[in-house]
Amino acid sequence: MSKITIAIDAMGGDHAPAEICKGAVLACKEFEDIEIILTGDEDKIKACLEPHPRIKIQHTTEIITMDEHPANAIRKKKDSSMRIAMEMVRSGEAQGCVSAGNTGAIVAGGVLVVGRLKGIDRPALGVSLPTIERPSFMIDVGATVRCKPENLLQFALMANIYAEKILKIKNPEIKLLSNGTEEIKGDETVLGAKSLIEARKNLNFQGYLEGNEIVWGHSDIIVCDGFNGNVALKFGEGIMQGLKSLLFDEIKKSFMAKFGLLFLAPVVKKLWTRFNYEKYGGTPLLGVKGSVIKAHGRSKAPAILSAISAARTFIEEDGASLISSEI
Amino acid sequence: MSKITIAIDAMGGDHAPAEICKGAVLACKEFEDIEIILTGDEDKIKACLEPHPRIKIQHTTEIITMDEHPANAIRKKKDSSMRIAMEMVRSGEAQGCVSAGNTGAIVAGGVLVVGRLKGIDRPALGVSLPTIERPSFMIDVGATVRCKPENLLQFALMANIYAEKILKIKNPEIKLLSNGTEEIKGDETVLGAKSLIEARKNLNFQGYLEGNEIVWGHSDIIVCDGFNGNVALKFGEGIMQGLKSLLFDEIKKSFMAKFGLLFLAPVVKKLWTRFNYEKYGGTPLLGVKGSVIKAHGRSKAPAILSAISAARTFIEEDGASLISSEI
Repeated sequence: MSKITIAIDAMGGDHAPAEICKGAVLACKEFEDIEIILTGDEDKIKACLEPHPRIKIQHTTEIITMDEHPANAIRKKKDSSMRIAMEMVRSGEAQGCVSAGNTGAIVAGGVLVVGRLKGIDRPALGVSLPTIERPSFMIDVGATVRCKPENLLQFALMANIYAEKILKIKNPEIKLLSNGTEEIKGDETVLGAKSLIEARKNLNFQGYLEGNEIVWGHSDIIVCDGFNGNVALKFGEGIMQGLKSLLFDEIKKSFMAKFGLLFLAPVVKKLWTRFNYEKYGGTPLLGVKGSVIKAHGRSKAPAILSAISAARTFIEEDGASLISSEI
Repeated sequence: MSKITIAIDAMGGDHAPAEICKGAVLACKEFEDIEIILTGDEDKIKACLEPHPRIKIQHTTEIITMDEHPANAIRKKKDSSMRIAMEMVRSGEAQGCVSAGNTGAIVAGGVLVVGRLKGIDRPALGVSLPTIERPSFMIDVGATVRCKPENLLQFALMANIYAEKILKIKNPEIKLLSNGTEEIKGDETVLGAKSLIEARKNLNFQGYLEGNEIVWGHSDIIVCDGFNGNVALKFGEGIMQGLKSLLFDEIKKSFMAKFGLLFLAPVVKKLWTRFNYEKYGGTPLLGVKGSVIKAHGRSKAPAILSAISAARTFIEEDGASLISSEI
């Protein structure tokens, strides 16, 4: 069994390094074939890491924070935990990397450190959204804020390969997020992307998708620019968090409701688990020369585990080569 | 008491004309000072209208459907129920109009028939979103698909007046929807709008708002382009509809859950009612010479009532003049 080496930014995210280290250990227990290199402050990592034969530490002295300018941070902080993890991918020391840190910096590092695939103008972050019918792979959710039609076409092509080869969806349905399903909807960019994608006969393009359809899972792939994708994704998270807190505030107020919850709890729990983003912890940065996975900033160990799992699958299937050979 | 005359497109929306007529009657019962002119097919209207001394019918022969090209439909269908209602506003026969029909056509009609206010380049649809802390007035939710920074500034100025004078919010907080709260977020358009809005010292501008904050109501006014606003608004509706159907599917499966619901029902109902868009049925088209209110396409009588109520308040406060005097 050939080993897969994954570099993990131990200092990125709200719960770093403790939950990152826990997630790494969970991953080594679940996957026999992976080796992990944790990049970050050696003392801080050792303080919370349960030692494991397949986990090494690469000491680094800098950290990229959430509010730093992404490109500048990646350029200047040459010894940051995130940049070092990405340099290991470029050098081949690791086949992939995972970070729960500054999203913009991960995207910038993907381009400046790991490097863009030939034929890809802009990278894209894709996430498997939980929906009612089936997970929908939404691309882009924040890598490329505003797009040209050509960018959206490239996102569709990359997502199509990712969905077929990694998510194992046969002939995935692709829809373009728009402000309505009618032909006449969309602005110049969306209209332009529509005709470019339609022209690719190898893509199973099904036209526009509007906001209220997202939750029903009317498509395997949802193509949109990084601004819309980011707003929609965060809005969805916010609604789930908001409803949860409202529900429990209301229940606290009423004995009857508390009593009712005893019986309804399994249902509420089931719905919550189903729409819990932690299960969808691994967000691939598509369009770069390697497996670069972004984990949610609020990731705890289970989310880090699923991000590592996503990196592992992407490496096993050699996702980057598949994409470059298609483009 | 001076009478307020409101023209209502009786043929627009999924439940026209029956629910539109019911809503008109509800409005006449609630507001002594209004007179309503229903525009549409006289026979069809009479067939479902409970006669009322303050409701007149203006017979029209054409209907603008949901999938027609908005501007073309408004230009060509000179005897459509929607266009006639808007011409009554232009002529002064009515001070305001309400339609649950084709949103694009309402916007086009607002510009081509009712007319744009001097100093406003593009109109905007604003909607009071239900949130946890307080309603947030989101503008634009679909009138102007993509915007220049100047458009977003004008939306902020119009929303500020609407929030102060119509919604009676003192010194309303304004935030700009973006892909993060950090200074460096946003694309050229959003960044440009940010500096234009910041420069207006009379506006209480509080910077960026990201998607997950929408539901918490961290701002009185949320400024965004019509594409983002439309996607977010519909996504929110979709999630509520989706959760409702999932919850009841799950409950059907389990006797325990059914039993639990007996006790939890008031809480679930309370949450649902609170986030039910029907209570927010009236969406003003700001930037035109009169009171033009869009009702949700799925509107039933209660939503039509609240749309008429919104039109009435806008007319009473003379919203259009307030906006033009400020711009």
